[in-house]
Amino acid sequence: MASGLVISVDGMGGDHAPDAVLDGIEIAARKNPGARFLLHGPEGRLSPMLEQRPAAKAASEVRHADKFVAMDVKPSQALRQGKGTSMWNALVAVEEGEAQACVSAGNTGALMAMSMMRLRKMEGVHRPALIASWPTATGFAAVLDVGANVEADASQLVEFAIMGEAFHRAVRGGKRPKVGLLNVGSEDQKGHEEIRAAAKLIRESGVDLEFHGFVEGDDISKGTVDVVVTDGFTGNIALKTAEGTARLVAGFLREALSGGPLARAGALLALPALRKLKDRMDPRTVNGAVFVGLNGIVVKSHGGTDGQGYAAAVEVAIRMARSHYREEVAANLARLTIASAAPQAAAPGIS
Amino acid sequence: MASGLVISVDGMGGDHAPDAVLDGIEIAARKNPGARFLLHGPEGRLSPMLEQRPAAKAASEVRHADKFVAMDVKPSQALRQGKGTSMWNALVAVEEGEAQACVSAGNTGALMAMSMMRLRKMEGVHRPALIASWPTATGFAAVLDVGANVEADASQLVEFAIMGEAFHRAVRGGKRPKVGLLNVGSEDQKGHEEIRAAAKLIRESGVDLEFHGFVEGDDISKGTVDVVVTDGFTGNIALKTAEGTARLVAGFLREALSGGPLARAGALLALPALRKLKDRMDPRTVNGAVFVGLNGIVVKSHGGTDGQGYAAAVEVAIRMARSHYREEVAANLARLTIASAAPQAAAPGIS
Repeated sequence: MASGLVISVDGMGGDHAPDAVLDGIEIAARKNPGARFLLHGPEGRLSPMLEQRPAAKAASEVRHADKFVAMDVKPSQALRQGKGTSMWNALVAVEEGEAQACVSAGNTGALMAMSMMRLRKMEGVHRPALIASWPTATGFAAVLDVGANVEADASQLVEFAIMGEAFHRAVRGGKRPKVGLLNVGSEDQKGHEEIRAAAKLIRESGVDLEFHGFVEGDDISKGTVDVVVTDGFTGNIALKTAEGTARLVAGFLREALSGGPLARAGALLALPALRKLKDRMDPRTVNGAVFVGLNGIVVKSHGGTDGQGYAAAVEVAIRMARSHYREEVAANLARLTIASAAPQAAAPGIS
Repeated sequence: MASGLVISVDGMGGDHAPDAVLDGIEIAARKNPGARFLLHGPEGRLSPMLEQRPAAKAASEVRHADKFVAMDVKPSQALRQGKGTSMWNALVAVEEGEAQACVSAGNTGALMAMSMMRLRKMEGVHRPALIASWPTATGFAAVLDVGANVEADASQLVEFAIMGEAFHRAVRGGKRPKVGLLNVGSEDQKGHEEIRAAAKLIRESGVDLEFHGFVEGDDISKGTVDVVVTDGFTGNIALKTAEGTARLVAGFLREALSGGPLARAGALLALPALRKLKDRMDPRTVNGAVFVGLNGIVVKSHGGTDGQGYAAAVEVAIRMARSHYREEVAANLARLTIASAAPQAAAPGIS
């Protein structure tokens, strides 16, 4: 569709790179005929692999990089030694305006540190955040921060709310996503000081959000709201706890259905239905955490994903690149800045 | 077994009181012939109901109380007006040494506030905490705090570790439960300052714990450790997130298995296996959150549970009452106190 849509790809990031990366581009290129890809990595290795992937080949340009960031390297080390790696170059293409978004399945800490260094924080944003897509009873919720910062004060939480809401609209297409603040109760006096202050700030600052108020842990999966806002410590623990629980229940189900001849026969009959269930819980469909709050879009694919999962992450990058995400975030942040700068008891008309 | 084992029961706490309470005592009394129960509530209502529950009748003594704490009352209000209610009297029986433990399915906030007032904090404990039992791939983990405090500093986290470990041994019978601190990564430099300081304190204070180090959200369900230590904000959100996720997956499964004639036939064949799965995920089997750190045992049953769930909460109270829980906690807290009082660079032999 949109001509000029270019996605910059770290061809060597992830446990199954470059195979999973190239498979992902093949799928994404077929689905998005307008998109082009800058593929960073060793040309001698990538170019022959493109021969077997015609759609990816037609849409991609290989940019040679012979170094890559190891999965177990520390962020500080990656910053010092990262120049010229496929990840670094993929980000620089966004920095220099050649591409609108970057996708990598590489080392998360390194990607965040390099993104911060190369793309820098967007004006008005104090802390970039990591957004995860979370399957719910009614669709998908965006949860942030899931790990970029261990702490967040009230105005940072409001920034997360603004970025998460714009993200949800860009990627899921809803018109007015409902935003909730994660807390231990729904009453106004519950929880940390910062969360109560953030709720007050959202209500009084005039930011343009459909604010639901506080939500609890079980509200995430219920789909009570579309955007769940929390600090990176709580968000990371909630996300991993949910992943662990889903895996536990799936394990219990497998055990139950292999527990005897009747159960096995039943499972066999119900196999197509159980496959559908598996697809619905497939982490690949929600692959693509987005690092928001920078001057450029950075999508982090799960390191262990395959081509289909990688394509989902590329899809997220494409939708964000096609949206007015940044302009909307900037406009809403400006409302917040005006409110914060206004005197405590603002005269009517000031905000 | 142990003669003199007396459990004090709030006969009017919970959504289905007094029926669920009496059904629960009937089941628990049959299983524990040595246990006796003080049943607090309106005599005119409870005594006739005991006629249909012979084991409960033989093991119980009704203590008349004509008031009870409403499920929606605020803790502060419950403290002011709670005197003489069935909940209050149930706690006073523990305070006065008539019973070793109290069980209530009533208002959680009111129960915690009244417990604090009547039973007071155990020597050496700064913050009592709420422990939840969590089903894992290998058994059950104890997770605390799940909501008594929104924050916890390093030494409070260590107190939680000590209390959680003694709880796990008392209720699950394991010899050396492994203890983990909930964090966003397993590396030493990750997470909040307080958590890193707590890990250091456990390692250096000489408390008697099998300390595993940091665990992440998905480790809870995996059963990586037996006791998961965190602050009440994070613990509450993790617990409710897990409940929400389990419910979501169960809902997806139900939908999948009713999605066509083949799936329905398969589900019918596998029905006994699916029932076993349901039992395994049954919240009633893990009913009974324990409020620890007081001069007396207080078990909070889920408000909406039935007789079987109530019996599980009573069972937790009985096991704790029969254990050496308090002495062990006291001994370990003493080690912590000595370590904290010792000079920074302690001379060899001091601790």
